[in-house]
Amino acid sequence: MIYRHLGRSGLQVSLFSLGSWVTFHNQVDASGVREMMAMAWDAGVNFFDNAEVYANGESELLMGKALKELAWNRLDYVISSKFFWGLKPVGGKQSRINSQNTLNRKYLMQAIDGSLQRLKLDYLDLIFCHRADPHTPVEETVWAMHNIIEQGKALYWGTSEWSADEIRAAWEIAERHHLHKPVMEQPQYHLFHRQRVEKEYARLYNDIGLGLTTWSPLASGLLTGKYVEGIPDGSRGAMQNMAFLQEELLDQQKNHAVAQLQEIAHSLDCSVAQLALAWVAHNPRVSTVILGASRPEQLQENLAALDVLKKLNPETVDKIEGLTAKFAD
Amino acid sequence: MIYRHLGRSGLQVSLFSLGSWVTFHNQVDASGVREMMAMAWDAGVNFFDNAEVYANGESELLMGKALKELAWNRLDYVISSKFFWGLKPVGGKQSRINSQNTLNRKYLMQAIDGSLQRLKLDYLDLIFCHRADPHTPVEETVWAMHNIIEQGKALYWGTSEWSADEIRAAWEIAERHHLHKPVMEQPQYHLFHRQRVEKEYARLYNDIGLGLTTWSPLASGLLTGKYVEGIPDGSRGAMQNMAFLQEELLDQQKNHAVAQLQEIAHSLDCSVAQLALAWVAHNPRVSTVILGASRPEQLQENLAALDVLKKLNPETVDKIEGLTAKFAD
Amino acid sequence: MIYRHLGRSGLQVSLFSLGSWVTFHNQVDASGVREMMAMAWDAGVNFFDNAEVYANGESELLMGKALKELAWNRLDYVISSKFFWGLKPVGGKQSRINSQNTLNRKYLMQAIDGSLQRLKLDYLDLIFCHRADPHTPVEETVWAMHNIIEQGKALYWGTSEWSADEIRAAWEIAERHHLHKPVMEQPQYHLFHRQRVEKEYARLYNDIGLGLTTWSPLASGLLTGKYVEGIPDGSRGAMQNMAFLQEELLDQQKNHAVAQLQEIAHSLDCSVAQLALAWVAHNPRVSTVILGASRPEQLQENLAALDVLKKLNPETVDKIEGLTAKFAD
Amino acid sequence: MIYRHLGRSGLQVSLFSLGSWVTFHNQVDASGVREMMAMAWDAGVNFFDNAEVYANGESELLMGKALKELAWNRLDYVISSKFFWGLKPVGGKQSRINSQNTLNRKYLMQAIDGSLQRLKLDYLDLIFCHRADPHTPVEETVWAMHNIIEQGKALYWGTSEWSADEIRAAWEIAERHHLHKPVMEQPQYHLFHRQRVEKEYARLYNDIGLGLTTWSPLASGLLTGKYVEGIPDGSRGAMQNMAFLQEELLDQQKNHAVAQLQEIAHSLDCSVAQLALAWVAHNPRVSTVILGASRPEQLQENLAALDVLKKLNPETVDKIEGLTAKFAD
Repeated sequence: MIYRHLGRSGLQVSLFSLGSWVTFHNQVDASGVREMMAMAWDAGVNFFDNAEVYANGESELLMGKALKELAWNRLDYVISSKFFWGLKPVGGKQSRINSQNTLNRKYLMQAIDGSLQRLKLDYLDLIFCHRADPHTPVEETVWAMHNIIEQGKALYWGTSEWSADEIRAAWEIAERHHLHKPVMEQPQYHLFHRQRVEKEYARLYNDIGLGLTTWSPLASGLLTGKYVEGIPDGSRGAMQNMAFLQEELLDQQKNHAVAQLQEIAHSLDCSVAQLALAWVAHNPRVSTVILGASRPEQLQENLAALDVLKKLNPETVDKIEGLTAKFAD
Repeated sequence: MIYRHLGRSGLQVSLFSLGSWVTFHNQVDASGVREMMAMAWDAGVNFFDNAEVYANGESELLMGKALKELAWNRLDYVISSKFFWGLKPVGGKQSRINSQNTLNRKYLMQAIDGSLQRLKLDYLDLIFCHRADPHTPVEETVWAMHNIIEQGKALYWGTSEWSADEIRAAWEIAERHHLHKPVMEQPQYHLFHRQRVEKEYARLYNDIGLGLTTWSPLASGLLTGKYVEGIPDGSRGAMQNMAFLQEELLDQQKNHAVAQLQEIAHSLDCSVAQLALAWVAHNPRVSTVILGASRPEQLQENLAALDVLKKLNPETVDKIEGLTAKFAD
Repeated sequence: MIYRHLGRSGLQVSLFSLGSWVTFHNQVDASGVREMMAMAWDAGVNFFDNAEVYANGESELLMGKALKELAWNRLDYVISSKFFWGLKPVGGKQSRINSQNTLNRKYLMQAIDGSLQRLKLDYLDLIFCHRADPHTPVEETVWAMHNIIEQGKALYWGTSEWSADEIRAAWEIAERHHLHKPVMEQPQYHLFHRQRVEKEYARLYNDIGLGLTTWSPLASGLLTGKYVEGIPDGSRGAMQNMAFLQEELLDQQKNHAVAQLQEIAHSLDCSVAQLALAWVAHNPRVSTVILGASRPEQLQENLAALDVLKKLNPETVDKIEGLTAKFAD
Repeated sequence: MIYRHLGRSGLQVSLFSLGSWVTFHNQVDASGVREMMAMAWDAGVNFFDNAEVYANGESELLMGKALKELAWNRLDYVISSKFFWGLKPVGGKQSRINSQNTLNRKYLMQAIDGSLQRLKLDYLDLIFCHRADPHTPVEETVWAMHNIIEQGKALYWGTSEWSADEIRAAWEIAERHHLHKPVMEQPQYHLFHRQRVEKEYARLYNDIGLGLTTWSPLASGLLTGKYVEGIPDGSRGAMQNMAFLQEELLDQQKNHAVAQLQEIAHSLDCSVAQLALAWVAHNPRVSTVILGASRPEQLQENLAALDVLKKLNPETVDKIEGLTAKFAD
């Protein structure tokens, strides 16, 4: 495994990491979770990504159970959670005005405790503001993140899908008020979604040392090539709660580009998914590429992208980017 | 005339102002310049926009000459210039490594003196960094802007076409180091180009009090309706050095939308250009809408958009935005 | 005993102090540790130096046991530990990517708890960053040191073998962000190793009030004269894990200088070791000289250097420094 | 010519530049100065280095005269001076207590005016504190540098042969008090003198964006190979005021290494001097390599090192560094 520093922090994360989004609870049960986490661990993965909203808390519960059973040394692994949407109330009809779609102090100070309980941990390594909240001043959120860290409940904080301007605002407020600064951002990043990471954030890497824990490296599966012939049964595209992805997944032009990428993959003796993963990992601004997998074999295959990374030369990278350039919004 | 404060500054600018880009020197000569400036002045315009790069210094020379002749009270008008590209060297062969496409201290400290000389003024009201320079630290540029203001050579400074992140970086550096802060930004803004002003800058209005001096309110003429039937002689689209605009100006779908806007304009008893100008002015974030004109009658017509603004109700605005929504990148 | 303030802090430490490096656990067992600590205590020593890495945690365990048995008043003694290398994992095979050779937040926040447990103390008086970590931003480390102090787990923090530039960086970051500043540095300092303390740190004493807890005052034994005739049995030079010292310990020219120092020592009626210790103590920048000893008599002899200090006049100091000047790197 | 940014500033300097030390006035007269400056200019050199102390002011007088005659565009060239030693009094016996070997405010505020007069310029681009002054607080010097820049007499300031700690102290004081920060350092740097640039300053490049204008790339001529057979007539080693260099220049081991470098140079079809210059330029931390030359042909030969730079591959660099490693103090 390769390890990279999380931006300008002293913490190192494995270049490929395991995320629980979509899969844990919905597609993978407790024993599957433990099996995949163990498999990742054996491959050198030290970062496991989670969020309060994933399966409405169930994903954290499953990961907490697995961590208990696996009993690794706490210093050796890195766990995250993220806050913004809040938990869906079970049954009750009361609108949860202050605890959904917000980054206010009231919600955040309580949300961390829920995550710690579900994950059965004394502290989280990384906590993320899962989205930006235009209605809460950045300063209020920065203070809450700072206080959670001061209380020992988390080590580092960051953002997910914030604009460059919002990230810098948070960093500057923390700098000015001498608070813990945001260290990392979790953006979507893959061959069909590059603008934010490569253009919008460009100045942030040097100016504030931003690290990236990127999600959706395979564009929800589009880059596996499995949608070239339509939506297969059992795929993410066939999941009811993922219906919003269908149009994208069946985009003809993109699937055509994927078919062409398959030829490059063939020449490198790998799958197109592995090629797409290696391409993400190849960007030195990326601290870790979060992998999702619904089956152990899938995870195994994806982790093997590490070998493909070693074979990527500038010429191949140019070819890959040439084929996908027009979709790189 | 309506006057608005330039962002959170105490300076007021007329809602419609006169810009010299494209027209001065290339399409309008000295007497035309004086005539149009006088006409604008009589309509209550108090802001006249310029830049070092416009006609490679000639635009400033013409405006300076006109100001001398018009002999208005210096307190009553507001003049700007902008720096980034540098003047094209006349004849010399030495590469101008430190004076073109830059915002470094050496260039800026000298550029302001050139503009003052050409405009025959003791000070400029507004100076802009005409583009962002990724190779000069924002801090160096902020210091130069500050020093120019400290030397009495300008009153306020701002940016043009900077990203939200870069504007905030400049503001924060100025705040931290107790320097004069950027006050305004000059972005392109019209019915076919809204994303930056409405989305990207959204947090900046309240956070730092950003003012806007918007350019190209008519999308280089596309929103006058004159390209609905192709490129007419003598139009901007027919100018050799504006060839890069042709594809855009002849875009079928956009011209179709313009044709539909014409119907709304008709119902308000105005031209489509006046409707488009009133729509820009209708956004309260806009401090001033910079008008360009190659003939006095054109300017007269555009200034009359002020009357259209009074007739714009929310329903009409919705209709206008509905027709152009899909192009509002 | 003489007591000196630890740099510009209000804490006083005995001019000679007792360190556990090399000896505790490896050469001295539990009863020996208690005996020597008691002996030092009786001579007025109030500072006992330790580190997580010494004998991989065993040195802290032994000192903790002795402190429990000796049952001194907690206000009367000063205990340190140091963090950087991390504990060697016992058996496990997982690479400890975030807990070895690092000063990141994750490691430091956990390491302090381990030291407190092994030493059976509620708080440490002094904690040191045992080496500089070029891969963790100084700011992250300063924050962790600050937070450990805020949590009441330590009173003062400092560095060991950091460059002047790194020490100043830490101090300035703490100053800017209103955090607890580094108070002391633990450098090697003896007649054959003077450059860092006397030249490199020169400006730090007045600028930031740096205190020094110096180590290896006898150059690993070279300055005792015991290697003038080769490596004697049972000496540090004969220890397997100290093999890296042999070349240095047998250096002919240095041993020749030691022989000449013996003559000066003779004239002052002391051993050359005592002379060398007195010379270190004679530098007013030194807050305390950490002594190591494998036997009680050795410690006794070294503590007696205090009497030699009183006999050192400028002329003698000049002579001493003249004999060793060319080795004073 | 290749141009590099001067550290993290927006100013670009040519990778090879022309220095006047030793040569101007002593070895080169007015017409020679003009000829060599013109030759450098034609090769794309835009930076010309000078100092008050060089030939006791005569070097600045000669460069000023040449600049007047060459009449280049002021925006296109970069001129430096440096202050510390002060001018030798002509005739008088009064000890100049406040104007020699100092960086106090009194001396600096006056020294800049003298340099501007001798160089016949309105402003200098770069001013250096020629050495560190342990007796003047860094803060006093930083304020003087800041004020000189605020007065418009210089654009950027830096240091020469300061320790990393002193450079950081200056930077931090400027940051804290919101003053112009030091941008560059002028250190000695060549194959026999690497420690400071490569080790001591290591953290400064990223932390404060330090740029380097390096001097003595040929080790006072040692790396030209001309001393392999002793001191030739007319060489720097034969100059009376350079007598202090003789021991170094005749060092047998170093001259042996130079002889071996000549073989590598031979294989690259260049002189050993060109090889040594290309090696310095090859370090990306170096903003510009200052060349000295007593004859036009020498300068021509040295500037041609630019072509050698293109041929330097990692393997050759390793070989070069292997041969000289033991002298790289």
